[in-house]
Amino acid sequence: MGKKQKVEAITPMDQDFAQWYTDVISKTELVDYSPVKGFMVIRPYGYAIWENIQKEYDKRFKETGHKNMYFPLLIPESLLKKEAEHVEGFAPEVAWVTHGGDKELGERLCIRPTSETIICSMYSKWLNTYRQLPYLFNQWCSVVRWEKTTRPFLRTSEFLWQEGHTLHETYDEAQEETMQMLEIYRDVAEKHLAIPMVVGKKSEKEKFAGAYATYTMEALMHDGQALQSGTSHNLGQHFTKAFDITYLDRDNNQAYPYHTSWGISTRLIGALIMVHGDDNGLVMPPKIAPTQIVVIPIAQHKEGVLDKAWEVFDGLKESFRAEIDDMDGYSPGWKFNQWEMKGVPIRLEIGPKDIENGQCVLARRDTGEKIQVALEDVSSEVERLLDEIQDNLFQKALNMREEKTTTAVDMEEFKKNIAETPGFVKAMWCGSRECEDNIKEATGATLRCVPFDQETIGEGKCVCCGEKADQMAYFARAY
Amino acid sequence: MGKKQKVEAITPMDQDFAQWYTDVISKTELVDYSPVKGFMVIRPYGYAIWENIQKEYDKRFKETGHKNMYFPLLIPESLLKKEAEHVEGFAPEVAWVTHGGDKELGERLCIRPTSETIICSMYSKWLNTYRQLPYLFNQWCSVVRWEKTTRPFLRTSEFLWQEGHTLHETYDEAQEETMQMLEIYRDVAEKHLAIPMVVGKKSEKEKFAGAYATYTMEALMHDGQALQSGTSHNLGQHFTKAFDITYLDRDNNQAYPYHTSWGISTRLIGALIMVHGDDNGLVMPPKIAPTQIVVIPIAQHKEGVLDKAWEVFDGLKESFRAEIDDMDGYSPGWKFNQWEMKGVPIRLEIGPKDIENGQCVLARRDTGEKIQVALEDVSSEVERLLDEIQDNLFQKALNMREEKTTTAVDMEEFKKNIAETPGFVKAMWCGSRECEDNIKEATGATLRCVPFDQETIGEGKCVCCGEKADQMAYFARAY
Repeated sequence: MGKKQKVEAITPMDQDFAQWYTDVISKTELVDYSPVKGFMVIRPYGYAIWENIQKEYDKRFKETGHKNMYFPLLIPESLLKKEAEHVEGFAPEVAWVTHGGDKELGERLCIRPTSETIICSMYSKWLNTYRQLPYLFNQWCSVVRWEKTTRPFLRTSEFLWQEGHTLHETYDEAQEETMQMLEIYRDVAEKHLAIPMVVGKKSEKEKFAGAYATYTMEALMHDGQALQSGTSHNLGQHFTKAFDITYLDRDNNQAYPYHTSWGISTRLIGALIMVHGDDNGLVMPPKIAPTQIVVIPIAQHKEGVLDKAWEVFDGLKESFRAEIDDMDGYSPGWKFNQWEMKGVPIRLEIGPKDIENGQCVLARRDTGEKIQVALEDVSSEVERLLDEIQDNLFQKALNMREEKTTTAVDMEEFKKNIAETPGFVKAMWCGSRECEDNIKEATGATLRCVPFDQETIGEGKCVCCGEKADQMAYFARAY
Repeated sequence: MGKKQKVEAITPMDQDFAQWYTDVISKTELVDYSPVKGFMVIRPYGYAIWENIQKEYDKRFKETGHKNMYFPLLIPESLLKKEAEHVEGFAPEVAWVTHGGDKELGERLCIRPTSETIICSMYSKWLNTYRQLPYLFNQWCSVVRWEKTTRPFLRTSEFLWQEGHTLHETYDEAQEETMQMLEIYRDVAEKHLAIPMVVGKKSEKEKFAGAYATYTMEALMHDGQALQSGTSHNLGQHFTKAFDITYLDRDNNQAYPYHTSWGISTRLIGALIMVHGDDNGLVMPPKIAPTQIVVIPIAQHKEGVLDKAWEVFDGLKESFRAEIDDMDGYSPGWKFNQWEMKGVPIRLEIGPKDIENGQCVLARRDTGEKIQVALEDVSSEVERLLDEIQDNLFQKALNMREEKTTTAVDMEEFKKNIAETPGFVKAMWCGSRECEDNIKEATGATLRCVPFDQETIGEGKCVCCGEKADQMAYFARAY
């Protein structure tokens, strides 16, 4: 409720989805625009979501043997240039530091757009023998990529992320790692963020600059656009050769290790908003919600109400992320709206009558359903409901994705689908860059991935050129 | 054990303390020098220490009602310049971004050296009414200050830290917050890092650029130099006026809030090393140690040894941060040295004889003492020992500081003390900048703080000018 914020309602999502998004992120105080164009401020409510996402992924990374570390923010121009494809991919979008204090620097330094180059320069110094392998390291940090058009969480010139960087003795081990991390990404996204993911391989055109192969998880937003939500790269030996990372292998020969990198970012918050949100605002999956339940006293000036509300709150706060809203001067209805907008999964209402009857009311954010619960059962009921809401949100998102997923056997059908049912189009693809480009030009849809989960559409002919095609791909317009 | 690392012993600390420090941080793989001058790489062992420090402070911040957020890395030059003292203090040491991609920017952006300016610019947008106060927010991030001479953890061009930024209705509340955060800093530093702190107020000369008053905690290193280890600033209304942060107060008037900021950084890792370390390497306080206990099997090729060692390890790993070192091809003695160097508080040795007798050996890093323990008592004994080690390290550090703390009534005594017993010198100070400068010139010692815990030295006359002085200060050479 800052000075510059309007108190008007949120724009309905089906009227103007982009405006709905902008309304929701600012009214719920997730994020704000900063004085630096393209850079966002992540406000406490938005950051709390990030902390919950971070915590779960970090736990999974550590369980699979990864350790965190921290590399410098700045990368010398000469290092960035060492791997040819990589510099070509990133040089146009990096920020350059030219002066330190009053002095011009001898060599320009870029703010990391990603850290493969500087990390490889150090791995080459540290790695000596196969006994040290695998190298399983990760870092949480911010990166900068100078973007022309930006939108908070989805595309900003600075964002928070993690980047894993591992080294292995064999190609197979690197591939296994690449797949393992993608699977962790998918699992947490589905189980905690309640966002169903399509997982698969990127095309040559869409892969990471310098990768041997890039794998991705792709989510579908309410407006039918896809969002790339996490990528895992098998980098082969491209970087390890460019950076001369060698080690003495089991046969006593100098060898180049195999290399992976993988990342997820604050983009996932954008996905959360656009998958689960509705016209009343955010809808938070319980496992990620900064506040899982809010206690709102009704007629709180009446004797005993506040005491009882606090008693109930105290009974909840050890087991759940709970809040109590006993602010004076605001009506319960106003408070309901505020907390609904923030997407808190359960609202607990308790007033004089409830207290008389030894009960309270639990209202679900996802369905609007209200349940009366005896006070002694509140904790167990809340626990059950949170699980149910979590499952329901995933199922709803899956249904939405399925409704917005079509198949096409030729370009006519493809165009019709994209126009009438914006979403994923599953279609056969011959594998050529030309068809990929033609599809984009004709429909605005890009090749999101060739999914691991394959099927044959129609007679197995490329949706674009009609030639024989042995792979099915997901296409969509994308953020 | 990277290619470029020597396997020579650590330089004895009393022979060359700076070299000892360099040896320890590189041999234990805490940190490394990066390709960018003055920037360090924090390696996994070093970063794990930071994570443990972070976790405890973050918990305390949240318990006292603070929430985390994230502000942009880059600050426009015009914003940095809004508060006069602040820009004067920081402009000479910031890194400037002049180009985004191929384009020169319209206005130079500096990489944050600290975030008061950009945060105030947003607070001015968000704050509306006294009902929103206090603002209790914090961010964990990295900052850049271009330094000429650097040393890992102690002074580097980039470092990791947290910066709290709060707003309050009254001066008194801001002062209370400033003190509360300093007290949290001290409490965690003493109880978790086992480093005794002197807490007090900085002189006008040494205070933060733009602060009304700066408070500090100061630790004494093994070589008798002080290390400023955390600061908490009462910023008064300097920034809130410069950034036009106003709100409607309880009397319906527009008012400027009172402001604090406070920070601790990866410098604390430098303090840990230089307070507790010895000629064999690091000595880690159990509460912060990445590994609290390491299990080392003796004669591990003998039947049953490895199985038993793993059984013991499995029994420990749920309750403690435990590791087992069953690497082949290295002798137990070599392993002992490695883990000793890394400062792991307890080493557990278990060999065939121990197994026969149903026992194992626990060796303490801090005292070298070895104890035989029945296998069924291992967990309780480890718990007891870790507490004892934690207490012992604090007590040792306190004794060291007391041995290195002297008093002086005149400059002759001051110079003699600094030469013969490098450390803190407690002396009366008249409060003048001139005497502060003269002391520094004559002895190299700076005024670390005017401690809260006051006493009168000699006859209460300024150690420099001999005039009446009503405050005692701590002086020391400092990092």
